[in-house]
Amino acid sequence: MAKCSKCGSKAVIKIPYARMNLCEKHFIEYFEGRVAATIEKYGLLREGESVLVAVSGGKDSVALLSALTAIAPELRLKIIPLHIHLGLGEYSDESLSVVKEVSRKLGVNTYILNLEEAVGAAIPELSAKSNRPPCAVCGLVKRYVLNAAAIEWGVDAVATGHHIDDLAPYALKNMLLGDMSAALKLAPVTTGEEGYLARRVRPLYEVTERECLIYVIVKGLPFVRTLCPNTFLGGMDALIRKFLYELDLRHPGVKLRFMRSLAKTATGRSTDQARIQAELTRCKYCGLPSRSDVCGFCRLTERVLGSPAGPRVREVLRRLQPLHAK
Amino acid sequence: MAKCSKCGSKAVIKIPYARMNLCEKHFIEYFEGRVAATIEKYGLLREGESVLVAVSGGKDSVALLSALTAIAPELRLKIIPLHIHLGLGEYSDESLSVVKEVSRKLGVNTYILNLEEAVGAAIPELSAKSNRPPCAVCGLVKRYVLNAAAIEWGVDAVATGHHIDDLAPYALKNMLLGDMSAALKLAPVTTGEEGYLARRVRPLYEVTERECLIYVIVKGLPFVRTLCPNTFLGGMDALIRKFLYELDLRHPGVKLRFMRSLAKTATGRSTDQARIQAELTRCKYCGLPSRSDVCGFCRLTERVLGSPAGPRVREVLRRLQPLHAK
Repeated sequence: MAKCSKCGSKAVIKIPYARMNLCEKHFIEYFEGRVAATIEKYGLLREGESVLVAVSGGKDSVALLSALTAIAPELRLKIIPLHIHLGLGEYSDESLSVVKEVSRKLGVNTYILNLEEAVGAAIPELSAKSNRPPCAVCGLVKRYVLNAAAIEWGVDAVATGHHIDDLAPYALKNMLLGDMSAALKLAPVTTGEEGYLARRVRPLYEVTERECLIYVIVKGLPFVRTLCPNTFLGGMDALIRKFLYELDLRHPGVKLRFMRSLAKTATGRSTDQARIQAELTRCKYCGLPSRSDVCGFCRLTERVLGSPAGPRVREVLRRLQPLHAK
Repeated sequence: MAKCSKCGSKAVIKIPYARMNLCEKHFIEYFEGRVAATIEKYGLLREGESVLVAVSGGKDSVALLSALTAIAPELRLKIIPLHIHLGLGEYSDESLSVVKEVSRKLGVNTYILNLEEAVGAAIPELSAKSNRPPCAVCGLVKRYVLNAAAIEWGVDAVATGHHIDDLAPYALKNMLLGDMSAALKLAPVTTGEEGYLARRVRPLYEVTERECLIYVIVKGLPFVRTLCPNTFLGGMDALIRKFLYELDLRHPGVKLRFMRSLAKTATGRSTDQARIQAELTRCKYCGLPSRSDVCGFCRLTERVLGSPAGPRVREVLRRLQPLHAK
């Protein structure tokens, strides 16, 4: 491989849109610098704020947690990692042990929420008994728990490990299907509302999947190798991903330009976002945001278990202790 | 091939998004019906209006002229075809003879504007002496002449043969490059302004390139087979076209859905269009729309020939007689 553009030592990665090759040391610097720059540029987090970091144990969330931990002192951020044990057999058990190992290596106190224990049912049962696809149920549960934890703990924002290769294909798909407002939700930040709806931030907005992978490898961090048993990438999504991959390979930077313009358009439309939020009400069971009188999570758990689990999840979160509480 | 979904006789085309196979007769009915429906749905033309039809002699513009001629009596439209002889060697000569043959077959009186005669220079010279790419110069000249003719002749609208396979890749490219307002210009209709800027309409907005080709073949009409000598389709455009082709092949109707949503968004933004037009002024030489005191066409010809050709082109158009004036 080529030599590092900064110091001349052996490069571990080529960054086409920046026309650089970088060694381990300078790539780590580059990756973490880019995350810090994204936080600043889009106003994701301010000095002194606390941020809940969603950690599944996959390479992307491990990269997110590692980069945020590295830049936290400089930006004076308080990092609060949360892992949700989803009850998806071996995949979930491997995820949990990876998250424990990563937490130990990074020296962070991670919170673990066991869905089966907190709710009385894990993803497979919730999916089967509600007759809804597991990925839809899983998305609903994760969004609910992350927001509930942030509200319960008074955390300023929830950070997720979505990178440009997750977001760009999804944005493009929404545009192709004519749903511009869904595309605009894929901005680097969505506004929250005190004590009710947490701000959601995407610090990996401008990094690629490949960069996440190389970053966790050079940092010597473990990550889940098994695919989620419900993983399915076919049809239109696969075509769109392939297209964006080829396009950016031949025209480096197109993907970034696309997402930057989306972020710009989304920012210009903050009134739209406010309007959407104004249509939200509070769930009569758990008090968290809902489009009708019962939120999606309480409705799902009520149907499957006979009673809405929102209040119980909030109670469990309130008492939850992190892995290695100092 | 399969049988016609309407009458059971031999089908000549499969229309995937409509889940139909059609014979010659029913495909002609389908194609012309779709053009008529597009005109009505998007309000391109109203009963009794006159429309200038740009005819290059390629399959798309021949399909446009043929379909408009067929539906003109029912919609009470006056069709005025105009062909511009661009001076691109054999390609332009073949185009002219195709246009003459098509006009004879369809029984329409086509106007021919010879650029070399009207301006004193054709595309190759205008391109070489201005040091600008031939396709940029050609686009500028055609847009100018079409608008000038419509204004000079008091025609209600200018129709061009852009179909969904021209427009969708271009719209997607603009979105990927972050230029949403350029994408929104690719709507089925742009508003005009009396005596100054002609309304532009795209009656083939919802038909595909393949449908245009099959239509002119089954109608027994000739079309230019030679490619323009300046044709170049590479780089990003080729990738985007290929992607949309594959996407629509596997998910029939996606392209149409995409362009319909674009049309809807563009319509909702008519205020934006008005604002853009408000920024237009009149060229001090020819009086036609311009962003500065001299329009692009007058500036180009002034630089190449020493004097702006706009006024002369308007004069030539005023005296122009159609091919077979009754």
